[in-house]
Amino acid sequence: MRTYNLALIGFGGVNRALAQLIDEDPTRFSHLGFDLKVVAITDLAMGSLVQADGIDVGTVLALRRGTTFEQFPGGSATVNNETVIRESPADIIAEATFTNPIDGEPATSHVRWALESGKSVTTTNKGPVALHGEALKQLAADNGAVFAYEGAVLSGTPVLGLARHQLAGLTIKGVQGILNGTSNYVIGRMEAGLALEQAVAEAQAEGYAEADPTADIGGSDVQLKVTILANELLGASITPADVDTTGITGISADDIISAAREGKRYKLIGSAYRGEDGRVVAKVAPNAVSADHPLANIPGATNAVSFDTDLLGTVTITGPGAGRIETAFALITDIIAIHTREKEKVNV
Amino acid sequence: MRTYNLALIGFGGVNRALAQLIDEDPTRFSHLGFDLKVVAITDLAMGSLVQADGIDVGTVLALRRGTTFEQFPGGSATVNNETVIRESPADIIAEATFTNPIDGEPATSHVRWALESGKSVTTTNKGPVALHGEALKQLAADNGAVFAYEGAVLSGTPVLGLARHQLAGLTIKGVQGILNGTSNYVIGRMEAGLALEQAVAEAQAEGYAEADPTADIGGSDVQLKVTILANELLGASITPADVDTTGITGISADDIISAAREGKRYKLIGSAYRGEDGRVVAKVAPNAVSADHPLANIPGATNAVSFDTDLLGTVTITGPGAGRIETAFALITDIIAIHTREKEKVNV
Repeated sequence: MRTYNLALIGFGGVNRALAQLIDEDPTRFSHLGFDLKVVAITDLAMGSLVQADGIDVGTVLALRRGTTFEQFPGGSATVNNETVIRESPADIIAEATFTNPIDGEPATSHVRWALESGKSVTTTNKGPVALHGEALKQLAADNGAVFAYEGAVLSGTPVLGLARHQLAGLTIKGVQGILNGTSNYVIGRMEAGLALEQAVAEAQAEGYAEADPTADIGGSDVQLKVTILANELLGASITPADVDTTGITGISADDIISAAREGKRYKLIGSAYRGEDGRVVAKVAPNAVSADHPLANIPGATNAVSFDTDLLGTVTITGPGAGRIETAFALITDIIAIHTREKEKVNV
Repeated sequence: MRTYNLALIGFGGVNRALAQLIDEDPTRFSHLGFDLKVVAITDLAMGSLVQADGIDVGTVLALRRGTTFEQFPGGSATVNNETVIRESPADIIAEATFTNPIDGEPATSHVRWALESGKSVTTTNKGPVALHGEALKQLAADNGAVFAYEGAVLSGTPVLGLARHQLAGLTIKGVQGILNGTSNYVIGRMEAGLALEQAVAEAQAEGYAEADPTADIGGSDVQLKVTILANELLGASITPADVDTTGITGISADDIISAAREGKRYKLIGSAYRGEDGRVVAKVAPNAVSADHPLANIPGATNAVSFDTDLLGTVTITGPGAGRIETAFALITDIIAIHTREKEKVNV
């Protein structure tokens, strides 16, 4: 049985959920050939903690708000991300800090420090992937490490893995998806008669939308995800700036009602298609789609990606696009991929 | 580059489509690390053909109806399945003969002969998998071969691979699906006002339904598929006889209309769930589901499987459930899995 030492960078909802899953059942992954041990945690509010023999995750999860790691052996109230990432005895860095859509920092540096040290990375952070994906993948390859990011799109719903592995034998001509649960929920509530502002307020009350919903309803969250899908699934080399992006703030209840009269439904669709000239064109825009469109009936905060393929026609995967446990599952999927790669190394 | 020699057992729509894909572009799979060469074909109507250096697939595909393989070197008008499977220089047997829901023959013998000879098998045939899956998997393991059957459920839509690989890190509590395109199409047309008989006749005219639609609308096709899903995804050990099965012949247009009045839609649902006592209960029955059910809006001849999981909640994959090329793609997916296994063998 192989044991992987984990460093959790950013101890928010996602990495806490992963820690909780490990704490609840330390043998949860034994049937897959590995166990997980948390040896380091850093967090803006709590500081840094490194314990090579394994951190008692249950104790750390139970800490009261405002407590720092200073009280523990190997603990400190300051956040020493670079030292922890480069020097802790972690095999895998789980990066789950906030998404910065401008330059991907500080997450991009976290990923770079890890890969430079030959440590594999799993992240749910769209920033480094959408903005610096190609360079970071190269850095991983140069250092014999893995850079994995299933959770950057549709949280744990395995869109990237499905395409990369189960659809490896065909050609994906294009993808389109409902990639933001908040905006899909808001459009659904507007269909039911609410104004945009009311629907957003309700989404905030339900916990779907952030205090500042701009990235969700303005389309920039989807813009990052479409960039990742275009580069990953269609072999494009684009940046978010290449993705023409319109959010849902320009749709009115009237638009939605007139669309419904024609049997159509509005959806905020992120898409990427390879054109006749070989160039990949990616965009984000609200679309009034007919009832038989593969994304027409994706409800509430659910997400979906539809692949347009040469041999299978249309294949669609639908599932959660957010949630603590759901997103932590993406980290697990990445760790399984890292384990598969480690087994190959042993064999070679 | 590894070359795999293929024997095509049953030269109907599916194996012809595979042959056509290879003929159109012999380097189609080179980026995956292998090429495919057809070295043997058998067919009830055409006889047997074995050419160790590779059959000119284009010529064979262009043969007129009623022609046999007798005219070719290595050809014969008789069907020597056992000799071809056991003794031809094939590495992989692509079994695509007709489904026999009673005992799975002759396909089960084809699979057994191949595995006994250490040859891996890809099949789209539900019979051997639903009726003898466990024994055949054991036989494969005993002989260092692979028994692969992605196409037994939802043709090339990669339901089994998705569950086995991308969902490996979670627990599947149950599955439910629309597993028969004909019956889904028929119900859809009944919603639009047709009587069952009219809808079936239309499905036949459209090429969805067989001349004898009993297996489709009576539920026995779904019964076999649910057996496979229960055994494969929930670790059950059931046979088709354990699956309580009701088809759609008992639903009337009146039932459908009254359901619609309550905002519900009829679907023929195959399901398998693990109960509190650990036993897996599988069944096939028409259900009037509410509009927010994950299978409520699967249209026409499209199929879908919805996984009920512990960490991701509900994840659904939607795609084709039939079609020549679509089903041939399942053979390709299996061959990729066989190739992955062959690489592991080399490394060990």
